[in-house]
Amino acid sequence: MTAHILSIGDELLIGQVINSNQAFIAQRLNAVGIAVDRMTTVGDDISLIVRSFREAMAQADVVITTGGLGPTHDDVTRRAVCDFFETGLVRDEEAYQNVRRIFAHRGRPVLAVNEEQALVPQGCTVIQNAHGTAPGYFFSREGKIFAVLPGVPHEMEAMMEHFIVPYFQAKSTGRAILHKTLLTTGIAESTLAHELGPIEDYFSASDGVSLAFLPSTLGVRLRISARAVSPDAAQVLLSRVEQAIRAKAEKYIFGTDAERLEEIVGRILKERKLAIAVAESCTGGLILDRLTDIPGSSDYLERGFVTYSNRSKIEQLGVRRETLDQAGAVSNEVAQAMATGARKTAGTDIGLSTTGIAGPGGATATKPVGTLWIGYADQDGAFAMKFLLETDRRRFKMRASQAALELLRRRLLKLD
Amino acid sequence: MTAHILSIGDELLIGQVINSNQAFIAQRLNAVGIAVDRMTTVGDDISLIVRSFREAMAQADVVITTGGLGPTHDDVTRRAVCDFFETGLVRDEEAYQNVRRIFAHRGRPVLAVNEEQALVPQGCTVIQNAHGTAPGYFFSREGKIFAVLPGVPHEMEAMMEHFIVPYFQAKSTGRAILHKTLLTTGIAESTLAHELGPIEDYFSASDGVSLAFLPSTLGVRLRISARAVSPDAAQVLLSRVEQAIRAKAEKYIFGTDAERLEEIVGRILKERKLAIAVAESCTGGLILDRLTDIPGSSDYLERGFVTYSNRSKIEQLGVRRETLDQAGAVSNEVAQAMATGARKTAGTDIGLSTTGIAGPGGATATKPVGTLWIGYADQDGAFAMKFLLETDRRRFKMRASQAALELLRRRLLKLD
Repeated sequence: MTAHILSIGDELLIGQVINSNQAFIAQRLNAVGIAVDRMTTVGDDISLIVRSFREAMAQADVVITTGGLGPTHDDVTRRAVCDFFETGLVRDEEAYQNVRRIFAHRGRPVLAVNEEQALVPQGCTVIQNAHGTAPGYFFSREGKIFAVLPGVPHEMEAMMEHFIVPYFQAKSTGRAILHKTLLTTGIAESTLAHELGPIEDYFSASDGVSLAFLPSTLGVRLRISARAVSPDAAQVLLSRVEQAIRAKAEKYIFGTDAERLEEIVGRILKERKLAIAVAESCTGGLILDRLTDIPGSSDYLERGFVTYSNRSKIEQLGVRRETLDQAGAVSNEVAQAMATGARKTAGTDIGLSTTGIAGPGGATATKPVGTLWIGYADQDGAFAMKFLLETDRRRFKMRASQAALELLRRRLLKLD
Repeated sequence: MTAHILSIGDELLIGQVINSNQAFIAQRLNAVGIAVDRMTTVGDDISLIVRSFREAMAQADVVITTGGLGPTHDDVTRRAVCDFFETGLVRDEEAYQNVRRIFAHRGRPVLAVNEEQALVPQGCTVIQNAHGTAPGYFFSREGKIFAVLPGVPHEMEAMMEHFIVPYFQAKSTGRAILHKTLLTTGIAESTLAHELGPIEDYFSASDGVSLAFLPSTLGVRLRISARAVSPDAAQVLLSRVEQAIRAKAEKYIFGTDAERLEEIVGRILKERKLAIAVAESCTGGLILDRLTDIPGSSDYLERGFVTYSNRSKIEQLGVRRETLDQAGAVSNEVAQAMATGARKTAGTDIGLSTTGIAGPGGATATKPVGTLWIGYADQDGAFAMKFLLETDRRRFKMRASQAALELLRRRLLKLD
């Protein structure tokens, strides 16, 4: 079975909103053995939407649309659905009660525009919206599936998880597409390709296996895909290729699939009952933000310091003024002193620090924008490492936070 | 002129990567008067890519493609371009020197796969890549434009800025589409629509103006679009509608277009020569990360505290143990004590704090997941405000950081 994803909304065509719904829907469909072979985005225009419905239903077995179901005048998807199926609107009692419930919870009166959201195209199965007022619509016609979902990500996501995915799981034939992604960081795409050598060594295309290199700010991901008659058979193919890759590049691989480095580092800290304190200068809180995205991070993150000024480095971390004056704030010495000071002040097992030049200002002749020092301290002492990253401020911060967490991971696992 | 954007890559179809390129390209094309009426995503399959090239070139005046130009075997866009234009490859000397230069800078040898990236389709104008090894290709055929760009965002973005946008600016006819977005936060979409009243009060559709409501985690954006014979005429329309909206909803509007709340707050602090210290518990460094994304933030951000443990709240901020024991860490009293302590310890004009329950754990009978207290302190004293936000951890952190920065903005501007 193949699927088309159709995103609807002028905000997408003018580039105001980045479309994250397509990726989410594709992932969930893949998990139930449905390959997406096309994604399309059109504006809030009834005739163009109807034409896109027609094209998608002609080419794919499954069509999922998102967007244009809101309460305001620019939302026209429901009218397009009625035109396409040549049907009218009826009130859905459960959707109506949902609207009333949501507004009661917020302590606000139900407005007429909200009540109208309980009107749905006649003949559809209604997909209730647990997180908002606009219900979704589900049609099964001549062996094809057509689902209309809201564009608000968490509303759409809940409908995928609780309605669409279970529907396909129930009728699954067992044909499976599995993907596994090995996450690397600290190595360039072409160097990684070079170290892995010719891909023919791992498999031939007739195996139903493919390998893709996906570079991003946080590292290069290696995606292995396997297509087979059963999930088990696909799993065997995946494992064979994964082992071959790990044999050549294990040290660069910090995790797999949707894992995040902060999650992996957190797990190691938790298992070993280690506490950490982080002192950030150039990364400005991003390492701490990433660490605290993980539920339960309070088990190992004792505290953090964002020591943006020299004075705060002295007062909060005990960095000596002479060190700052002689070596400069962006230096091996200060990075070490920050990590040591964070560890000591917080009374933790580990101290981690960053100091660098995120730009656009602050560069000197010997310290260009992109310069980063990462400091690390534990009971055995302290050290620091220098990096030269890129010059875009946000990408610098992201790569610097990734490099710091990776240094921590390798140190904890005694790699390198 | 209308444009199609064609994204190429299996990683997009399986949902591994969120497509941010479409939005960027659409914004830049809009700015030179070109409306995007369709975006399509297909996989790394030569025949499907060629078919998509054909469809797009039949329907649009401008076609921009991204992706599939990398050095590895899964990148097939170049071969599809050659098939489509029935041409072969030639080496581009400038692209070749660029590859050599990049590898020399990295201190690494040039690999054969990288040298091959200097081979380009015969007959194209080469778009040099300032940030990577894969050049782009530009074709002008029978009045239509076809541009092939890499999928790595910052490489593609530089090519848009330095080649594609200037090309269209040079041949611009003056027909203009302008958008202006008013950014609101702290008010629901339907309530905002209700407060604004019927949109017919502001304009009739024949004016060439439209208004869209775009909800997101950080607030509801109101996008006004105007289409006119000249940028000046479009600007007049935009201003008229903006004034009418501001007359009814000014207090909710924190900024416009691509402005960010941290940028606006930073500007106010800088203008007034005020220094701030931030103490974060439940937001875990996100407020500090956002503030430090702004170049020059060291002018007003003195330091930050991520006080995840009770001990750190006591030691770093001087919160009293009895206050923590009696009121609990998530309370009006502790939020105020944190803000006051941050201000005092750092010696700044303002202290800002957050304490709350980001979930999934930590809830009590009276303090559900989503509970947030924001504390504020300045020379006139301290206060705190309570919020009940949502229960997804990351969205909670984002909305909590937005609420804290908005509270700061309104306090600085003496709104409410």
